[in-house]
Formats: sequence, structure tokens, C-alpha cells
Amino acid sequence: MAPTASAPHRVVIVGGGFAGLYAAKELAKAGDRVAIMLVDRRNHHLFQPLLYQVATGALSPGEIAQPLRSIFRKQSNVTVLLGEAVELDPAAREVCLSDGGRLPYDTLVVATGARHSYFAHPEWASFAPGLKTIDDATEIRRRILIAFEAAERETDPVARREWMTFVIVGGGPTGVELAGALGEIANDTLRNDFRSIRPADAWIEVIEAMDRILATYPPDRSASAQRQLERLGVIVRTSCRVVDMEPGRVRYEGPNGSAEVRARTILWAAGVQAASFGRTVAEAVGASTDRSGRNLVNPDLTIPGHPEIIVAGDAAVQPWKRGKAVPGVAQGGIQGGKHAARVILARLDGRPAPAFHYQDRGDVAVIGRLRGVTNIPWLGPFGKQSGFLAWALWLGIHIVYLIGFANRIVVSVRWAWSFLTRGRSTRLITGSPLIPPMDHPGPQPPD
Amino acid sequence: MAPTASAPHRVVIVGGGFAGLYAAKELAKAGDRVAIMLVDRRNHHLFQPLLYQVATGALSPGEIAQPLRSIFRKQSNVTVLLGEAVELDPAAREVCLSDGGRLPYDTLVVATGARHSYFAHPEWASFAPGLKTIDDATEIRRRILIAFEAAERETDPVARREWMTFVIVGGGPTGVELAGALGEIANDTLRNDFRSIRPADAWIEVIEAMDRILATYPPDRSASAQRQLERLGVIVRTSCRVVDMEPGRVRYEGPNGSAEVRARTILWAAGVQAASFGRTVAEAVGASTDRSGRNLVNPDLTIPGHPEIIVAGDAAVQPWKRGKAVPGVAQGGIQGGKHAARVILARLDGRPAPAFHYQDRGDVAVIGRLRGVTNIPWLGPFGKQSGFLAWALWLGIHIVYLIGFANRIVVSVRWAWSFLTRGRSTRLITGSPLIPPMDHPGPQPPD
Repeated sequence: MAPTASAPHRVVIVGGGFAGLYAAKELAKAGDRVAIMLVDRRNHHLFQPLLYQVATGALSPGEIAQPLRSIFRKQSNVTVLLGEAVELDPAAREVCLSDGGRLPYDTLVVATGARHSYFAHPEWASFAPGLKTIDDATEIRRRILIAFEAAERETDPVARREWMTFVIVGGGPTGVELAGALGEIANDTLRNDFRSIRPADAWIEVIEAMDRILATYPPDRSASAQRQLERLGVIVRTSCRVVDMEPGRVRYEGPNGSAEVRARTILWAAGVQAASFGRTVAEAVGASTDRSGRNLVNPDLTIPGHPEIIVAGDAAVQPWKRGKAVPGVAQGGIQGGKHAARVILARLDGRPAPAFHYQDRGDVAVIGRLRGVTNIPWLGPFGKQSGFLAWALWLGIHIVYLIGFANRIVVSVRWAWSFLTRGRSTRLITGSPLIPPMDHPGPQPPD
Repeated sequence: MAPTASAPHRVVIVGGGFAGLYAAKELAKAGDRVAIMLVDRRNHHLFQPLLYQVATGALSPGEIAQPLRSIFRKQSNVTVLLGEAVELDPAAREVCLSDGGRLPYDTLVVATGARHSYFAHPEWASFAPGLKTIDDATEIRRRILIAFEAAERETDPVARREWMTFVIVGGGPTGVELAGALGEIANDTLRNDFRSIRPADAWIEVIEAMDRILATYPPDRSASAQRQLERLGVIVRTSCRVVDMEPGRVRYEGPNGSAEVRARTILWAAGVQAASFGRTVAEAVGASTDRSGRNLVNPDLTIPGHPEIIVAGDAAVQPWKRGKAVPGVAQGGIQGGKHAARVILARLDGRPAPAFHYQDRGDVAVIGRLRGVTNIPWLGPFGKQSGFLAWALWLGIHIVYLIGFANRIVVSVRWAWSFLTRGRSTRLITGSPLIPPMDHPGPQPPD
């Protein structure tokens, strides 16, 4: 098994998100002692923390994504492959692709991430799209913009109200940032764009099952975020659980009984479930997963009994202090991916695999224009910011982590311009451009 | 008919391309003497001359499009409407929309433009997409990028050759600029991105029915363009007519008989036909059109017998010199649209409608990186440039005409960056990301 100069250690990485990307990058250190095959269904790495900005028309898709091939152009030990991993043959140590191809590995890194969970209601996906891919983002952008256009055309006040009502299910970072951006669109961006409606009359609700939004933050940060959303006119309903949904209406149960909202635009930002290949791996090797299908891994992120399979990022539940899981944020993926590389490097050198230690760099969420909350423990009292300073911190951090120098400049220009003009210049309706009739939930979001 | 202060002259403009946009902008001069309703199926104005750059991954869609509402935010005599004009009631002077709405007008401006014509073969549209909308551009980008990905995976040399063969039907400006960009992608952009294929081995053919490409330019410019394409490795076949096509193969007839090319990527940039509403108008009022369905108009761009209907841009055969029609370029639309506004202003003042005079500002086409041709008659001998100077002129002109200040800066940054790095940073495969099996032509392009 010890690698020789003539036979490099074959590493297959499935998934080009944060975990897969940083695993492959960190393995640059191994030089030609490893041969890395990075497989993804998409040809690009997506900077997911800014995806909601595409969904709300502030950025264009190309500004937050970078082709994987161009990222690894100069790292000669990486081969990028566009393909879908569908099965695992743990005995032969091969990953099987949907087109019949097979990729042999010495070490497998599973970095396939997670997506939203509709719990026991997969049928909700078609009328309450989630936000995980660029196609999701342009679909959500289409729905938001079409809703205002339809309201402008509508003369019946009840129907107009339905078009101008937006429900976001889930008050985690994605839900909060979407709601903040929607509030900004309604109050600022579209202020003078319409002749019949007042966009500021939009009714935006966030429905969260827990007793507070941003539940991974300390309670005072959650309270601050809620206040800032409310100042934008957003209604925050905590301790409320969605129990039923059909096109145009959402029913939820809360401390005061159940209620129904009629809304033509419903967005989903709740629940977590492992992407299918992560679960396929668990089944193939007979490993345990949590309820969401995420792999329960050893302290070094390998699967128990399978030291040759490492699961990094949201596809795994990692041991962490006080038994809490690493939150599903970019830092979790980046650190997990780098750790996977370190495990492989240790093996190549014959050292024992190190244990994974998550370093909480803190969280930042932005709420519309000039507002936000931060929770950065290692900065002490300064780490708890609200409003403008939080927003400025958020800006800096995201520019620094964005992949691709051109993207960094372009996004900076866009943000500076939006800041000065209160505009969002990429408000394009693509795909089906017309207003769907009242009984039709609109086209299905891409899979 | 004379407008009074209490009843503004109602202008309906159908189409938010160059002609419709500039007609509405020019009517700012009329203040509240007119009430303009601008109807488009899309919510954005698209800067079509740069659409091929989206199709080839150099720019992101949001960088060449601007929401119509934000363009007219401050022009209070314009109301923007998202809708599809499907019928005309010339007696009632009303435009009928697909959702049943009716728009009464005192003057109608038809600015619905043209699209590619597949001649008598509409079935070719599904495997040889044309380039008119943003959705077309992202679909073409997907096909080009998927082709290189598939070639990288393919081990059979014949099949690999088919993936690496690109046929562009039509050698007008769009076909030439697409071919140049493809040549640049193959030779420069992707040079170090793949491990199994050499992108520079790509085989790119342009098939043109006329005896030269860029037939609206003087012959020496056409020859120069052809030389510059050939230096990029592009095969230019003039006097060749496509006679048959099916997924994966194109048959054409030329001076040396007929031949077949096997190519997995076929792009269509030939023929012109008026968009359907332009033809609907002609039928409704019993007016004449040319073979392409474009309205034959009076010297002032009105329809004979219908001074209240003005047809501007590619929906009309706009008169030029010696019986020639104005070419289907941005300037034709801009000048036609401005003229439509001038006709309306003249009527409001009780003056006779002026005749349309097209001012040929000249043509510029870019061919890959640092190359191009210009034909700018009013600059004298200096107006005929090739190579670098043509490319630099093209750059300046397009930045100046691009709508939206943020877009101008962002596009400048992208171009500067691409120039320095030979990169194209928006090479995203969206929509269906996987390589289609050999017998399947891929998903249909959006309508």
C-alpha cells in the first residue's frame, strides 16, 4: 500500500463544494505522490454564502462561481471530471459514475454536502423551491420578480395581496438573509419602479419552528436579527411549524393555534439532508448515519472500519466539543476538507491520522442594506456586532473568501454601486418570462 | 385627435430592444403630452451585440442586460408592462395581450425585431440553437462546455472528434464573432484545463451560403476577417448551403459538390425572420411584408394607410440607400426607434412626419482576442482597420453603448482581466449539467 514514485496514491474526491475544493487544494502539498480525481456534477465551484444575492438580483451567477478546471489549471496532481457518482464498490475500491465509468481509489473523500429537507413532503419542492444551486437561484429570482410584475397587472385587491405576499420557511442564515434582501427589494430597490403598486406594501413572513431565528447564534444575536428584520417590515413567526402547503397557501401551527397565509411566492430554507451519494456510501459500507442521512464519522473524519473513506463537510456529522455538530456553513466545509487532506498526508508519511478540531471562526449574517449581526467569539465583546459594523465585517469576509480575482473585483464594484444607488442591476427574469395564470404553480424548479 | 392637457397622447410600444428602448427614451422630450406603455415579454433590455460573449463564457448574463423598469424609473411618462402582445385590433386601436389585457393606443410603435430563420426546417431549431435571448446564450454556453467535457471523457477517437467539432451555420457578424470566440476558447482559454485532450485540436467550421463572410462589409474586409479566423484555426466554407441536418451531422452543398460534417455542436446564425407580432400587425391591417415577414413601410416608417402605426428596427424593412434595407444591427434599431419618437413629436406639434434617413456609423466585428475588422466609411481610410486597432475600437464603442453604469465598469473589469489572463471566468454549465448519451441531441433550447 505504501506509495512509490511510480504509483501515486489515488485519491478520488466526490464533490467540488467547499470541502472537496479545499481538500484538493491542500493536497497540492503532496505533489506527485498523489493523483487526485475531483468529480462533480457541475463544472463550477459555487460560493454558496452569496447564492441568495443571485436569487435577489444583486449579483449575476457568474460572479459567485468559478470553473473547477480553471481553479486547478496549475495544480498538476488534480484531474477534474464532470460526472455524477451514483454507486460505491467498497470491495473493489471503485466509485461508479452514472455514465458507467468507474474510478478506482486508494483513498475516497466524500464531500457531497447536504440539501434542504422537505421532511415527509417531497411534493412541496415544486411550489416552494429551495436555494442550493445557481439554477435554484435564478428560479427564485424569477418568481420574486414575476410576483411584483403580476401584482402591478392585477386589479383585484385580494389577488394582488397574494402576489405581494412572500413566505420564507426557515429562519436559519439562508432564510434570514433572503428575508432581509426581500425587505430591501420592497423598500428600496423597487421603490420607484412601478406605477400601480407600492412595493413597500409587500408582506414578508419568516416561519421558524424553533423559538428563535438564527438558532446557532447566542440568543441576544437572534433577538437583534429579529428586530432588524422587523424594521424592514418582515414578520418573524417563531415556534411555528408548517403543517400543510399547496400552491398559493401555507398552513402553520404555532403557540396560538393554526393559521393560513395566502402567498404566491413560497421559498424553502429549512431542514437538512445529506445528498444522495453520501447516503449511498453509508449503505454500501454498512455505516451509521443520523436522521438526516449524514455519516457518523470517527474523530479523524474516516468511516468506522474504513480508514480509506473520509467524509468531510455537510455529508458527515463530526464529533465536536459538547457533542454538537459543526454547523453547515462554509467554514465547516473548508476546515473539513483541509483536514481530509491532512489525514491523507499523514498516511503517506506513515504518521497516524490526526483528529479533526473545528475552530469556530464565528458567524456573520447580513440583513438587507447596512444591517446585520455577527457572533465572533474569539473577538470577545467586539465580536458581537449589529447593524452597520456587522454589515461591513460581512462584506470584507466575503470578498476575501470569494474564489477568483476577477470575481472579487466585479462583486466589489456591484456592491459599491448598489450601495450608492440602492439598485440591484441583475434583476433578470430568465426561463419562462410570463406571469402564470392563477391556478398554476409555475414551472417546476430544476432538479 | 389633437392632444389636450387633460388627455395625453397614448403611445404603445411593443418590444424593449434597441428600437423600442430608444423610442421611449426619445419621447422623454414630449413630457406629459404623451403616456407611453412599453410592453415586452422580458423584463429586461438586452444588449444583443455582446450576447455571443455570454454564450462563450466571457460575460455573465446580468452584465449585458438591464431591467426595463430601472431604465425608466425616472421617466414618468413611461409605464413598463411585462406581457406578450398577441393580436392587434386596428379598428378599436387596441393591442391584445396573451393574458386577455387590451392596451388602447393613439400611436402604436411596433419594435418586435427579428429572429433567426431556419428557412423551411423548423425542426433544426432543437439541435442547432440560435442566439437571440439570454436563455439561448446560456444554452449555447452549456453545449460548448459540455462538448469539451465529453471529449475529455471519451476514449474512442472518432467519437472524441465529433465532440470536438463545432459547426456554425451563417457567416454574418454573429457567426463570425461566435467562431472567433470559439477559436480563442480552444487555443487560449482552455489550453491548460484538460488532461486528456488538447483543446486546440478543436475543429471549427463556419458555413456561409454567400461567396464571402460579413457580406454587408466591403469585400476586402470580408477577406481580412476570413484570414483572421483562419489564423485561429477556423475553417471558413463560403458558397456552401446547408441542405440537411440531424443531431450530430450537417450536410451541405458547395461548389465542389456535397459533404457531411459530423459535429456534436451545431450553432445557428443564419437567416432573418420578423418576430410573430410584426407579422400579426401586417395581417391585421392588410399590409405588405417581404419574404422574411418584415413590414414594408413608408419613408417615415409608418405602415401605408395607417399613419398611427410605426414599425421601427428589424420588424420593418427600414429604407436606406438605392433601395437597400438598413442592416439588422444595433444602430438600425437605435436610429429607427429615435425616428419613431420624432414622428410622434411632429404630430403633437402639427408638423408633417419627417422621412427616416439612416446614418451609417459603420460596422465593427471582433475576432477572438486582439483581432477584428472595421468598416467605418465616415472615417475615410482610417475606417478600415484589421487586427488590434479594430479590436480596440470595438471595445470602446461597446463600452460606451452598454446600458447601465455598473455594467460598464463590470464589463471593463472582466475584459481587462480576460485580456491579462487569457481567461473567461463565467464558464458555467447551468441547466442540465451532464453529458448526454450519444444518441440524444440534448434538451431542447428554450423557445
